[in-house]
Amino acid sequence: MRILVTGAAGYIGSALARALLPRGEVLAADQAAPPAGAAAVGLAPVVGNLAYPPFARSLVTPDVGVVFHLASLVSGGAEQNFELGTKVNLDATRDLLEACRLAGHRPKFVFASSIAVYGGKLPDPVTDDTPAAPRLSYGAHKLVGEILIADYTRRGYLDGCALRLPTVMVRPGAANTAVSGWASAIIREPLAGRDYVCPVRPDTRMACISLGRVVEAFLHAADANVKGSVLLPGIGVSAGEMWNAVRSRAKGKVSFAPDDRLQPIMDAVPRATVSKRAIELGFRGSASIDEIVADYEEAAVTHHG
Amino acid sequence: MRILVTGAAGYIGSALARALLPRGEVLAADQAAPPAGAAAVGLAPVVGNLAYPPFARSLVTPDVGVVFHLASLVSGGAEQNFELGTKVNLDATRDLLEACRLAGHRPKFVFASSIAVYGGKLPDPVTDDTPAAPRLSYGAHKLVGEILIADYTRRGYLDGCALRLPTVMVRPGAANTAVSGWASAIIREPLAGRDYVCPVRPDTRMACISLGRVVEAFLHAADANVKGSVLLPGIGVSAGEMWNAVRSRAKGKVSFAPDDRLQPIMDAVPRATVSKRAIELGFRGSASIDEIVADYEEAAVTHHG
Repeated sequence: MRILVTGAAGYIGSALARALLPRGEVLAADQAAPPAGAAAVGLAPVVGNLAYPPFARSLVTPDVGVVFHLASLVSGGAEQNFELGTKVNLDATRDLLEACRLAGHRPKFVFASSIAVYGGKLPDPVTDDTPAAPRLSYGAHKLVGEILIADYTRRGYLDGCALRLPTVMVRPGAANTAVSGWASAIIREPLAGRDYVCPVRPDTRMACISLGRVVEAFLHAADANVKGSVLLPGIGVSAGEMWNAVRSRAKGKVSFAPDDRLQPIMDAVPRATVSKRAIELGFRGSASIDEIVADYEEAAVTHHG
Repeated sequence: MRILVTGAAGYIGSALARALLPRGEVLAADQAAPPAGAAAVGLAPVVGNLAYPPFARSLVTPDVGVVFHLASLVSGGAEQNFELGTKVNLDATRDLLEACRLAGHRPKFVFASSIAVYGGKLPDPVTDDTPAAPRLSYGAHKLVGEILIADYTRRGYLDGCALRLPTVMVRPGAANTAVSGWASAIIREPLAGRDYVCPVRPDTRMACISLGRVVEAFLHAADANVKGSVLLPGIGVSAGEMWNAVRSRAKGKVSFAPDDRLQPIMDAVPRATVSKRAIELGFRGSASIDEIVADYEEAAVTHHG
C-alpha cells in the first residue's frame, strides 16, 4: 500500500512520515525539497506546491490507501496573507478531497485540524461540547475542511476523520508562522544557550501536546477507523510553567515582553482541552510539561547525538 | 444605492426583490429570464449562471451596497448532483464573497442559510444551543458559507450575516428540488383542486415559516445590522396538521404514501426551531399554520385576483 503524507517536510509531517515507513511506501509530499537522506531512509519524496491544483490532484492515485493531510500555512501566516492561506488551507484541501472522490476507491483520509477552530469566550477547559467558533482564518478554513470531510465520508467518497490538534511541542530550529511559536521557543532557546524574549505574559496558558503523542494519534486514527472530528487532549501549561520546567538547567535566560497584537489572540484560544470521546476512542494526551520536555530532549539526542 | 439579489427569479428571491424596490435599484440576478413584467415594475434583471465564476464576480461593483445571496441548488437537487451543488452552493458563494472583498467597499452581505445545517439526532425544538451537524451536502455547504462570511466579516472585507431559514411556505406552482417540497404541495394542491399523494407520514413535523415573515427577516437583517448566524423561528407543524388546515375548503384530496428514501431524511431535520437570540434581535416567526395559509391565499389573490 502507498501512504500519502502532505506537509511531509514539516515538523509533524516528517516525524509521521518516518513512523509510517514500516507500513508501506510513503509518498512524502511537500513544497520544500526533503531533508538530505530522506529518500535513503525509505521515503518517496514528491516536491510540488499544493496551491497548484493539478499537483494536489496528481497525488491521489488509486494505489494510495491512506492520505494524511498536514500541509498548511499556519495561523499567523494565514492571518497575514489571506489569499495564500485560502489557497493552501482551503483550496488545496478541497483539491485533495476531490482527487480522492474522483479516484473512486474510497481512501482513508486523516486531516490535521486544529484547536484554532475554537475561539472567543471559551470555557476552560474546552471539551467535546464546546462549539467551534474560529477567530482566525486558519481556524475557519480548518473547520470548513472538517465539514467537507464529514460530507465526503457520508457520501462514501472517502473514509475520513479530523484531529483537532493542540499546540504541538517542542518545535526544533526556526519558528514557522504559528501564533503559538513562543511555546516551543521558550523551551528550545534557553536549552540551546540562547536568551529568549517571550511575547506573552507568564500566566498565558495554552493546551499542549508532545510531538510523540501527536504522531501516535495520527497512526491510531487510521488504524482504529476513527470517524468525524476528534479533539485531542491538550494539557494546560502557562508560559511561566514552561520556563520553570527548563530553568534550572538552561544556559539562556527568558524574559517576558507581551506583544499588543499577539496577547489578545492567545487570550482567545483554548487554555486546555479535555475530550472524553478522544479517550474512549483510545487517543492519549501528554501527562505533563516535564514529559513533553523529556520527549524533546530524547529526540534531540537520537537525531544529533 | 444598488442592491443585489441572487436567486431573484426564485420563490423567496422574487418576493424579496419586489419588497426592496422602494430602497434603490434592485439588481435581480438569476439564471432564468425574469418573469414577464419584472423590468416594468422596476427591477433591473441580470441573467447569468452563478456557477460561472466571472459572472458571479461581475455582480459586485462598488456601488452595490447590499448583497442578498439566495441562489441555491436546493437540498434534494444538491444531494443528487454533487458537482453542480458544489458549484452553486459552495463555489458561487465563495466567488461572491471574493467579489465583495476585492471591490473593497465592505458591502452588507445577507446570506440565505438553512436549518439543513442541523442534522442527526436533534433536540425538539432545535435552539440557539444546538450544534450544527449537516446530514446533506446542501446543509454542509450552507454551513461552510456561514463560516466564511463570519471570517470575511471579522477581517473587515464585508459586513455579513446569515439567516438559517426554516421551511418557507407555501410555494406556488411547480416544486423545486427541495426535500421539503411536500410541505407546500400538501396545502397548494388540494386548494387548487388537485389530489396529492404526500410522500411522508402524517405525523412528520417540520419547522415552518411564511414567505412574508422571511422577506421581513431579510429586510430586518440588513436594516438592524445583524451579525453572525441567526436561526429563524420555525413553528412545528405536522403533515397531518397542514392538511387539516385546508381540508374543510379543499377541492382536492390528500393521501399519505411515505417514501422509503425521503422519510428518513425528514426524520433527521428540525421539527421546530426556537431562537431567543432571533427574537431579541427583532426577528419574528409565524404564529400558526392558519396564519401561513392565510398569507398564501392573500398573496394569491393579490397576484391573480
